[in-house]
Order: sequence, then C-alpha cells, then structure tokens
Amino acid sequence: MSGKSPLAPKKFPAIPEIAGVRLGAAASGERYHGRDDLLLGEFVAGTRVAGVLTQSQTPGAPVKWCREILPRGRARGLVVNAGNANVFTGKAGYAAVCRTAKSAAKLLNVPANEVYIASTGVIGEPLNDSKLIQALPMLHKKMDGKIDGKPWQVSARAIMTTDTFPKGAWRQAEIDGERVTIGGIAKGSGMIAPNMATMLAFLFTDARLPVRVLNSLLRPAVARSFNSITVDGDTSTSDSCLLFATGAGARHRAVTRAADKRLGNFRGALQEVMNDLAQQIVRDGEGASKFVTISVRGASSEAAARRAALVVANSPLVKTAIAGEDPNWGRLVMAIGRSGEQVRAEKMVIDIGGHIVARGGKRAAQYSEKTVARHMKGEEINITIDLAVGAGAATVWTCDLTHEYISINADYRS
Amino acid sequence: MSGKSPLAPKKFPAIPEIAGVRLGAAASGERYHGRDDLLLGEFVAGTRVAGVLTQSQTPGAPVKWCREILPRGRARGLVVNAGNANVFTGKAGYAAVCRTAKSAAKLLNVPANEVYIASTGVIGEPLNDSKLIQALPMLHKKMDGKIDGKPWQVSARAIMTTDTFPKGAWRQAEIDGERVTIGGIAKGSGMIAPNMATMLAFLFTDARLPVRVLNSLLRPAVARSFNSITVDGDTSTSDSCLLFATGAGARHRAVTRAADKRLGNFRGALQEVMNDLAQQIVRDGEGASKFVTISVRGASSEAAARRAALVVANSPLVKTAIAGEDPNWGRLVMAIGRSGEQVRAEKMVIDIGGHIVARGGKRAAQYSEKTVARHMKGEEINITIDLAVGAGAATVWTCDLTHEYISINADYRS
Repeated sequence: MSGKSPLAPKKFPAIPEIAGVRLGAAASGERYHGRDDLLLGEFVAGTRVAGVLTQSQTPGAPVKWCREILPRGRARGLVVNAGNANVFTGKAGYAAVCRTAKSAAKLLNVPANEVYIASTGVIGEPLNDSKLIQALPMLHKKMDGKIDGKPWQVSARAIMTTDTFPKGAWRQAEIDGERVTIGGIAKGSGMIAPNMATMLAFLFTDARLPVRVLNSLLRPAVARSFNSITVDGDTSTSDSCLLFATGAGARHRAVTRAADKRLGNFRGALQEVMNDLAQQIVRDGEGASKFVTISVRGASSEAAARRAALVVANSPLVKTAIAGEDPNWGRLVMAIGRSGEQVRAEKMVIDIGGHIVARGGKRAAQYSEKTVARHMKGEEINITIDLAVGAGAATVWTCDLTHEYISINADYRS
Repeated sequence: MSGKSPLAPKKFPAIPEIAGVRLGAAASGERYHGRDDLLLGEFVAGTRVAGVLTQSQTPGAPVKWCREILPRGRARGLVVNAGNANVFTGKAGYAAVCRTAKSAAKLLNVPANEVYIASTGVIGEPLNDSKLIQALPMLHKKMDGKIDGKPWQVSARAIMTTDTFPKGAWRQAEIDGERVTIGGIAKGSGMIAPNMATMLAFLFTDARLPVRVLNSLLRPAVARSFNSITVDGDTSTSDSCLLFATGAGARHRAVTRAADKRLGNFRGALQEVMNDLAQQIVRDGEGASKFVTISVRGASSEAAARRAALVVANSPLVKTAIAGEDPNWGRLVMAIGRSGEQVRAEKMVIDIGGHIVARGGKRAAQYSEKTVARHMKGEEINITIDLAVGAGAATVWTCDLTHEYISINADYRS
C-alpha cells in the first residue's frame, strides 16, 4: 500500500478525556502482525447507546449481534477487531461473536448483552476468536494503569485496515449551560477496502441522555454525515455507527425528549463531529487525490437532493473527469439526468468552484473554461447544482477516481 | 486513444441487404475530420417504427424530437451524426434538429415527422447543423448508385465515437414459414465515452409488422439486451434504440397481435440480434480486458434478478477484482448484500466459472482458490448467484474496470 493520503489532516486532534469512557488497544495477532488490531472500550454503569447498522442483506455476525442487543440500549463494553470482518462465516462466525462478548463481559464484570462487537477486514474467512480472547485480559489490565500517550489515537489506529491515517474528532457542547464533550473515532477508506470491509464509527459523550433521545439524534445525523459520503458506492457488510452516552460528566438537568430546545447546541456539535469523521474517511478514500463537495439544492426534498448528489458523486465519469482536472460539466448534466430525481432542465444551474457553467438549459453565456479549469487544479473541488424544482438541499462528499484506486483494488492480490 | 479492444469480434458480419432499407454515410466535418460522421437511412413507403429512448431527465434535442414523432409510428428516413450529441444546447439545439429533419425530408420527398434523428458526441456544445445539411444531398446521390463495398460496415463506422470497432449483427427468421431478415448496427463504448455520449442501436427488418406489435416486441427485448449491459453504470442523455420494419420483403400473412404464435421465431431472432449488439458494446467497454457474464437466479422476479445482477456488475470493487484476476468472492457477497433485493443469505449459492465458492452462508467446503483463480485468468468470466428466494432469473453482461478506463476518462483532456 502507498503512504498517507495527500488529503489527510495535518495531525490527529487532541481529544480530551470523556468521563465514563476508557479505551485501550492491543495486538492480538489474529491476522495482522506487528500492530494493534484490537480495541477494548469500558463504560461506566448507566451508559446508554444508540446505533445505526448496515442495511446490507448479508451483514456480518457482529452486526447481527449488535442488532439483537441494541433494543436494550445499555452498554458497558465494546470490542473491535481489525483484519477479519467475520462476515459470511455461518454459525461458527456468530458463535465466535458470542464467545468474544462473553469473555469481555466476564473481564469487565458486566452482562454479555451490554458488550458491543464490531469487526472489519476479510470477508468469508473464519475468525480465530481465541486470539482476541487471549489478548483481552492483558489489554484490560493495561487500561487500569495510565495509558501511555494518546489513548484516542492508539484506539483509532487499532481499528484501521487499509486506512492510511487514524481518524478522530471532538467538540464541546452545552446542555442547560453545562459543558459536555463529544469525541469519536472512525475507520474507512473505500466502502470496502481490498478484501477488507467496513466503515466503523464510535462516538462517545459524557452527556446523560436516554436511549430514545440518542436514537433521535443519531439517525438524521448519520444521514447527513456517514450516509452522505461515498468513495466507490459500495456499501459494506459491517458498517456500524454507535453512540455511547455515559452521563458521567453531566451536570445538566434531565433531558427526556429529542425535541427539547436545550439539545440544539449538542445536536449541532454531534453533527460536526460526525461530519468531521465522515469527511476524513473521504480524505482517505482509496487513491483519492481530490476532496469533492457536491451540493444539490432546489430538489423536491432533502432526501431527493441527497440521492441526486450521491448519483453525481458515484458517477465514474464525473470522478475520472475530476481526477483528470477536466471541466467536463456535460458529465454533471448526464449524472443529474440519470439520477431519476425531478429536475427542471431548462432552469437548472450548475456551478463549479463559484463559477456558473450552465444555466437556462445550456452552457452559460459567461462560461470560461479557463476559470473552471483553474479551480479543477486545486485539491478541494466544489460543485453546486440547483435543480430548480423545490426547496430540498443536501451536501455530500466524495473523492476522485484515480489510477491509484485501480492499483489498490486490482493490482493487489489477496 | 488505444487500438481495437482485445475482446472485439474477429470481423464485421456479412449482413445481407434488407428490402426497403438503404443506408449511406459521409463526412460532414462538423467535428471530426478525415472520417465519416453522418449516416442517412431511407425507408420504403409503409415502413413502421418502434423505439425505446433514454429515461434521462436531461435528454438531448434529438431524443425530444423522436419522442414527439414516435407515436405516429411511420418512418421514411434516419439521420445520425457522431461528434456532437446536441444535448443541453437549449432552444437552438432543438431548432437544429428541426432544420436537419426538414432538409432530409425534402431530399427524400417525405414528411419531416417521419425522419428520425439521433446524435452522439460532446454534450453542451452548439451543433453546427449546416454542416450536416450541406453534406446530405451528395450523400443521398451516392446512395442512388451502387454503394461501394459494405454499406452496413460503413454505416456502423460512421456513428462511432470512442468505439474501437464497428458493431453489426443479423439473423434470419421465419414468420408463417416465410423468411425475413433482421439486421442492426450499434455504437457505444462506455455509457458515455470521454466527453461523448450515447448508446445508439438501429434495427431493421423487412417483415411487415404493425407499430403495436413492434413496440411489444422491442420493449422486453431491450430489457434483456441493452438494459442488461453496463460498462460504468452511467446512462447517457442520448440513448436510443429504434426498430424499423419495412414490410418490403415480407410474403407472410398479416400479423396483428404480439401474442401471435407465428412471431415466436422472429422474437427469438430479434433478441439474438439485440443481445449480440449489446454484448459487442460491452466488448468495446472502455479499457475492458475481460467479458463478464453475471447470472442471477432464485430472485423474487426477473426484474429483481436483473437489478441485483446490475448492482454486482456495477460494483467498482467487483470490477477491479476481476481486472486483478482475484477470486475475491467476498466482494460478490457485499454487492448482493447491498443490492436491496431479497436474498436468503444462508441458502445463497455463488458460483464462479462452474465452481461453487460459497453455500450455506459461508465458504463452500470444497472451495479451491486455485481452481477459481485459473478461471479468473481467462478472458470470459462467468458468475452465477442463486439468491434462493424465488424463480426470477436474469443475465447481464459487463467488463472489468482497469487502469485503461481511468486513462481514457481522466488522462484525456477535452
């Protein structure tokens, strides 16, 4: 694999401690050697959880496990391994998840159905869970002492597969005038990396929020972040986004409804953390050389705008034009045309980098290929399309499609 | 551009004359130089036509024209140009189509609304229709004498954009024990080639069939041929498939219903011609090095099977795995899983090249990576997936995704 993505952030953020959350990482040797591949999370009693899991019809065994325990809404532990996704591994794969959860539960002295599991890596390969189980006690012991250096960065690094950099983000927010913190880590670098699977994101806050509220906050935020990014349009069998709220740092009064106005600031901060992580995944997109923001407005609804924007973002011809720094706006017309979403072609406006290229059903009178070509040479490409139908708007993020993508996914042999 | 696709047929087929159809080509110089770029077709009085046009919300001006005149069902002429798609060209673009149709109509001494127009090439560039109109009289005059050499091949070549070889196919069929002929030409090499647009297919027969019957024959045949292929999942603004029936060679008794049993043989032959042309487009897929057949069976319906097969066929990760000759069947699991179609994962069977790789929700016991890897090294890749839900089946064709695709679409500057 090649080095760090040219679009990577300069450094990993200095995420502060979040009360009630402890994280640690270790090397299990299940598949990788010489690197951490196992993450253990421990949460204080009273921690609540909400989650959004892949809609794949062939989900991994850990996804099935999480789907079963999520309705309880309680979380005391988290185990994540990288290297083997434990997908399409039959009954043995599910049994491996159960054993892992039970082992972690015993170690943490909590119920097994409050231990969340996620896996990322090869599909169809039996998981040697004994390697994970063997590594857990030492890992937990290490967490009792002071974790050397940067636990967040170490944790973010342990869940990487073909990611070229660890991904973390955090924000502070206020509820009731009281400060709370939201921190998160994620991995992903292609909806599926070479023979590897998965977008994983884990979010933690010390706010005290009931499960119903967490769910109401998480779902729309996922739609606008992790479901608004695409590298290659391929959805993994293991995609998981979990939001844990410990309540351990919360001095705010109880919040019982998602519509509570006191949540406005928190909701915004959560969205920012999730957008930040989602955009980092795109910045680590396989072979990415450009970060592309596609905004669609004037659609019949927000969902319609997002669907249209994702069709543009997934178009190989749009993505290769961007890689080639080619101001080929005809491909945008094509992609919008095939999106199936309502559009008034004769009123549609296409803008690249603040320059209007098409309007009134044809090339804009003031169109200057030179100006647009200059924007295309940059690392950040901005495309805005007004469908001229309604008030729906959405923004998605993607990267270009380069030779490097093909090299990573075709030249590499499993 | 690079040379002829390695997957190209050995030679252009020897399509016989079809009574009532005359075809000719010329160089208009509208965009290309030193090659034919203009096709003129002339049909005998009484010719009927059916058509399937792109469902793009931003169709080209010629598509709008054809949509308007198709309900008449009568055809006396066809004008096709390559190099400029006349898409997103506003009112001027539509006026150019009208002028072209009127000029051809005058020349052929027929009504303008019986002259079909199709264009392929750049999007958003004003069409200089005067170039086409100037070239038509000489082209028509040439058609009065004997056409030198191979009119079908010359015609197929004139409508090419980034195609690396001309595409033609033909079959003979019987209606009522009387022989009729079906011939066709097509172009396409990527749903959209670099800055170019379009899949175009023109089918001609000397059978005598009413418009209603032609429509009933054409639609399902398009679903199983041109709508069952994909190179990059991008649909063009100009896709057009027209079927012309002159009736000039027909000694069969009148056929008035599509359900008429005497059409069985003709229906099969038409499907074969269309499948042949569709597969040639895939064989000319941009950068293609492998021809891939994906069959899905056991789906809830034929349409569901086709949708699932197309998701697999469009997956960049599946296509790059095939390019890399990597027996990475986990990517097939992923693609089927995200297709949204019903699947019983624990009963699903995945077969690559006649070798079962997955069954019973996990890797097949007899799986041999070596055997599958050997198949992957070939030029023709066969994948069969049984969803174990119902009786729906469909087959689609695609090609792999290679460095050459990126080179054609990114390295090339318009």
